[in-house]
Amino acid sequence: MRIAVDAMGGDIGPSVVVPGAVAGARSAGVGVTLVGRAAAVEAELAKVDRSGVDVRVVDAPDEIGMDEHPAQAIRRKPRSSIVLALRACKDGDAAGMVSAGNSGAVMAGALLVLGRIPGVDRPAIASYLPAKRGRTLVLDLGAVADPKPQNLVQFAIMGRVYAQRILGVANPTIGLLSNGEEPGKGNLFVQEVYPLLAATPGIDFRGNVEGRDVPMGTVDIVVTDGFTGNVALKTAEGTAAMMTDFIRAELTATLPRKLAAYLLRPAFRAVRARMDPGEIGGAPLLGVNGTAIIAHGRSDARAIENAVKVARQAAAEDLVGGIAAAVGGSG
Amino acid sequence: MRIAVDAMGGDIGPSVVVPGAVAGARSAGVGVTLVGRAAAVEAELAKVDRSGVDVRVVDAPDEIGMDEHPAQAIRRKPRSSIVLALRACKDGDAAGMVSAGNSGAVMAGALLVLGRIPGVDRPAIASYLPAKRGRTLVLDLGAVADPKPQNLVQFAIMGRVYAQRILGVANPTIGLLSNGEEPGKGNLFVQEVYPLLAATPGIDFRGNVEGRDVPMGTVDIVVTDGFTGNVALKTAEGTAAMMTDFIRAELTATLPRKLAAYLLRPAFRAVRARMDPGEIGGAPLLGVNGTAIIAHGRSDARAIENAVKVARQAAAEDLVGGIAAAVGGSG
Repeated sequence: MRIAVDAMGGDIGPSVVVPGAVAGARSAGVGVTLVGRAAAVEAELAKVDRSGVDVRVVDAPDEIGMDEHPAQAIRRKPRSSIVLALRACKDGDAAGMVSAGNSGAVMAGALLVLGRIPGVDRPAIASYLPAKRGRTLVLDLGAVADPKPQNLVQFAIMGRVYAQRILGVANPTIGLLSNGEEPGKGNLFVQEVYPLLAATPGIDFRGNVEGRDVPMGTVDIVVTDGFTGNVALKTAEGTAAMMTDFIRAELTATLPRKLAAYLLRPAFRAVRARMDPGEIGGAPLLGVNGTAIIAHGRSDARAIENAVKVARQAAAEDLVGGIAAAVGGSG
Repeated sequence: MRIAVDAMGGDIGPSVVVPGAVAGARSAGVGVTLVGRAAAVEAELAKVDRSGVDVRVVDAPDEIGMDEHPAQAIRRKPRSSIVLALRACKDGDAAGMVSAGNSGAVMAGALLVLGRIPGVDRPAIASYLPAKRGRTLVLDLGAVADPKPQNLVQFAIMGRVYAQRILGVANPTIGLLSNGEEPGKGNLFVQEVYPLLAATPGIDFRGNVEGRDVPMGTVDIVVTDGFTGNVALKTAEGTAAMMTDFIRAELTATLPRKLAAYLLRPAFRAVRARMDPGEIGGAPLLGVNGTAIIAHGRSDARAIENAVKVARQAAAEDLVGGIAAAVGGSG
């Protein structure tokens, strides 16, 4: 198996993506196709140990910036690293692709190049968020800001397939993100979605959940519209960053505190590992007809490595086939 | 000045509310009217030092549970502690009220008993959330799940008066919570609100902000619909609780870690104080024609004490008059 990696993606670019992709190829046991400006990619490749790893380079002269308008950029830059990595999947040269680039552009490109799985109305970005009990799969995190109520039924079905195939949860529990737990709670949209989910056969719908249930891990999967999901994700990330900052400031305020904190470094490393999105690696774009993994813009090499592993697993477990069967079965 | 306190409110009830209210009356320099079941209130009063504090007790035979339907409970229980505390404000016996009870019932009761400030279409629950830089005032946190776009203009105006009068920020900056910073980002609702805020004279509107900007403190005030605000608030609270849990588990995992962590207790206390909603005390219900402060259901005595201080300040600074003038001036 071979995974295509957008070597130009992310806030830092080839200097973290190339070593991360090579490490990912080695640990996942796959070949890797690095798509990007060939000179920049080769320069970074020269710095890493690529022994025993099947590495190919595909030159992509165009680059899509993090702030470019997604759909326009995809249309105007057919030779960008994002589009060519997606083409490698479409043409069968790769089983999946990873990009830490402009996530809107990855999504627009995936819809254009890979298309949707037959029966899927709208794709969704799904990712695990850290939780007290295990992890919580949340979708959508921003693919569709204004979905229709019935789209969330498909989000639940696609999330279920992901949790089953990738995390091995036999019968994942599903909650609907709302502003209260009682069945009547929610805005008008949630009140429309609730009965649709309750009437969907074959899913373990547990009703409304609140914002705190995401970090609590009350259910395995939380479904929401892409606007609310994006706000929740970024609020969670920002709160963790703020708290880390407060702790760092206090623990370095005096010399005795610094010494005590030094002794606790392994403990803080363990906390960071449980909180770190890089440990998860990447968020699959569920519903497109291929394996596209969106890595965080701030990904380091280890996050890219983990994203390659996610891509390999999604392809190996035939996530696309699973979703096609589940959506077809429900439609 | 006198503040009425719903003595039955909160998850714990009179045993924390009564000492908190008496402490708040003492530190804020106000009298306090404790509204609740007289026997229960008197029993708790007997345990606290009330010297020098003007304490009255108003018997309220009815109690509204945390899970009761707000509007129904208010109509069916006119002699509940929430309704009678609001009546004390309406009748001029108190300058403001505090309740840690069913927040939906406080809101429904405030609308019924106090009414809205002339010119205000919908009230909003506003609270400071902890932030890296200072604090961020967020509204609405759940009063209105499906506001109209123009309601958010009033939220911005009311939030501005609150930040000016209570926090002394001369010209608070205002952001609109969205799923991206660029002006075109957002769901359809946000895209309708944006130009309305941009066209509102006399406010310092800084455009869209993301979930992470709330804990970052990028702007002084974040306006949003009550559904999204509630999800963001609870996601932030839950994330902080999860992280605290992870840290506690790691720091107590071995004896050497426990010892080092013991030395750092003042540091962790300082972090907790910066994160703790109890330090802020209560969220005012902006837009109702009186001073109603909603305290967290999990309030301890110190949180109630701080909520009494918030009520005193809101009344002393004539928040209601300020909002009436600002909304009238803009309408």
